[in-house]
Amino acid sequence: MTPVERAQMAMVLEVTAYPKPGNVDRCHDYEGTRLEHFLASSILARPALEKAAGGRGGLGEVLREAVELTTAHGGGNTHFGAFILLIPLLRGGDIGGAIRAVQGSTVEDAVSFYRAFSLTKVRMLAGDPLDVDDPRALDIIRGKEMTLLDIMDHSKEHDMVAREWVNGFALTRRAADFLLGSGCGREAVVEAFLRLLSSEIDTFIVKEHGPLVAEEVRRRAAGILGGRGDLGAFDAECIARGINPGSTADITIAGIYIALGEGWEWDCSGKA
Amino acid sequence: MTPVERAQMAMVLEVTAYPKPGNVDRCHDYEGTRLEHFLASSILARPALEKAAGGRGGLGEVLREAVELTTAHGGGNTHFGAFILLIPLLRGGDIGGAIRAVQGSTVEDAVSFYRAFSLTKVRMLAGDPLDVDDPRALDIIRGKEMTLLDIMDHSKEHDMVAREWVNGFALTRRAADFLLGSGCGREAVVEAFLRLLSSEIDTFIVKEHGPLVAEEVRRRAAGILGGRGDLGAFDAECIARGINPGSTADITIAGIYIALGEGWEWDCSGKA
Repeated sequence: MTPVERAQMAMVLEVTAYPKPGNVDRCHDYEGTRLEHFLASSILARPALEKAAGGRGGLGEVLREAVELTTAHGGGNTHFGAFILLIPLLRGGDIGGAIRAVQGSTVEDAVSFYRAFSLTKVRMLAGDPLDVDDPRALDIIRGKEMTLLDIMDHSKEHDMVAREWVNGFALTRRAADFLLGSGCGREAVVEAFLRLLSSEIDTFIVKEHGPLVAEEVRRRAAGILGGRGDLGAFDAECIARGINPGSTADITIAGIYIALGEGWEWDCSGKA
Repeated sequence: MTPVERAQMAMVLEVTAYPKPGNVDRCHDYEGTRLEHFLASSILARPALEKAAGGRGGLGEVLREAVELTTAHGGGNTHFGAFILLIPLLRGGDIGGAIRAVQGSTVEDAVSFYRAFSLTKVRMLAGDPLDVDDPRALDIIRGKEMTLLDIMDHSKEHDMVAREWVNGFALTRRAADFLLGSGCGREAVVEAFLRLLSSEIDTFIVKEHGPLVAEEVRRRAAGILGGRGDLGAFDAECIARGINPGSTADITIAGIYIALGEGWEWDCSGKA
């Protein structure tokens, strides 16, 4: 499997793993965003992923291309957070290379990133001077000569995906280790997802529902891993309440990409 | 969407459409062959699909490459029948071009096809002098100078996928027309699949269960379309009895490929 195929497989394996509390999975869609949108996004992003792996284009430009390729359909944002992680990982080959890649990011990467961001419906925090909907944000970025890594540093407190850029992809590593320690196949993806969710509050839930709900979800995930509570019921409750641990999903995808490169078996046959 | 992306999307959209009587779908796996195997096959076949679209390599050689790329996993045969249709369609661009492509097939294509066949676990009819498990088959092919089109002609009575090569891709056209007449999205895929199943007995079911069962399935599918019988219950019964309309699925994939090229919307947003 090539690195790009590993990235595509990671996107496909994450979204089809189930039951996965609150997210689109094999058994659940959201209104307007269906399983098919995620699968289409995994296929249609390929030219941008190839550019990332082939060293062509800046990180921000490739990110913008990935978002453009995958918002052609009507399903809204599917893999924006995943691309923020996969593109430096593909550029660098592994976590060490990705750390070097993000350290080399530029002001132009930051500008392209903002243009990508504005194609999605992803919310930033109200009142942030770098709000994507505020046209002055680009002036601030250029005026302060902020690189894309600086942008991620600015966002790290409130966004666990951005935080990966500044903390050496620590949760990506953790997700990969959970997978490598959990056996093979989609059951391992579900377990790794739950372990990640139980170990770190999901900042996407914080943005949508506040920190108390995010902490409740973390604690419930830990409880299920400890044998307290039913995963199916928890999934149903999250969906009913619109609680979507989307950033944990993004990091799980990055973790699958790394784990596949380190011998983790998505297929339990011993062949793949 | 490029033609290769249309082919990949066709594979993904067919397998995730549900409820689909008897086959792997979003809600059902077979033991040893899971949804993930079909999705992986859709991603991993790409280099062969690119060769088909780019005019590189003979039809038989590209078919063998597609099978090799997609049997690296342990899920067994996933898209062999679909590749038999998609590869000439990609080579020719549309049905007219595919007809010309198969008419140009050679003895070497036939030999490569047999090598591809032997990588799968697909059964042929007992007693067929061209049985893939009989090493003399290749001698017969070379001795009689049979092209791959001749092989398909030999198999047409018992294999509706092979028949497509000699009948001008008539059922592929029919499946595309069902889709174009059924609206958008996965609901249209399910309806087109049922219409195809109700209009023609599935030869894969004939091979596995005999013609009476295949005719029963055809009649039941027609009944469901006419408002008699429940699709979910029919699906459950097919799975319990191991009845798998696999050739209808292959032709549905080819039909989706054609329909996507003619403006059919997989995504009902009006954007895709």
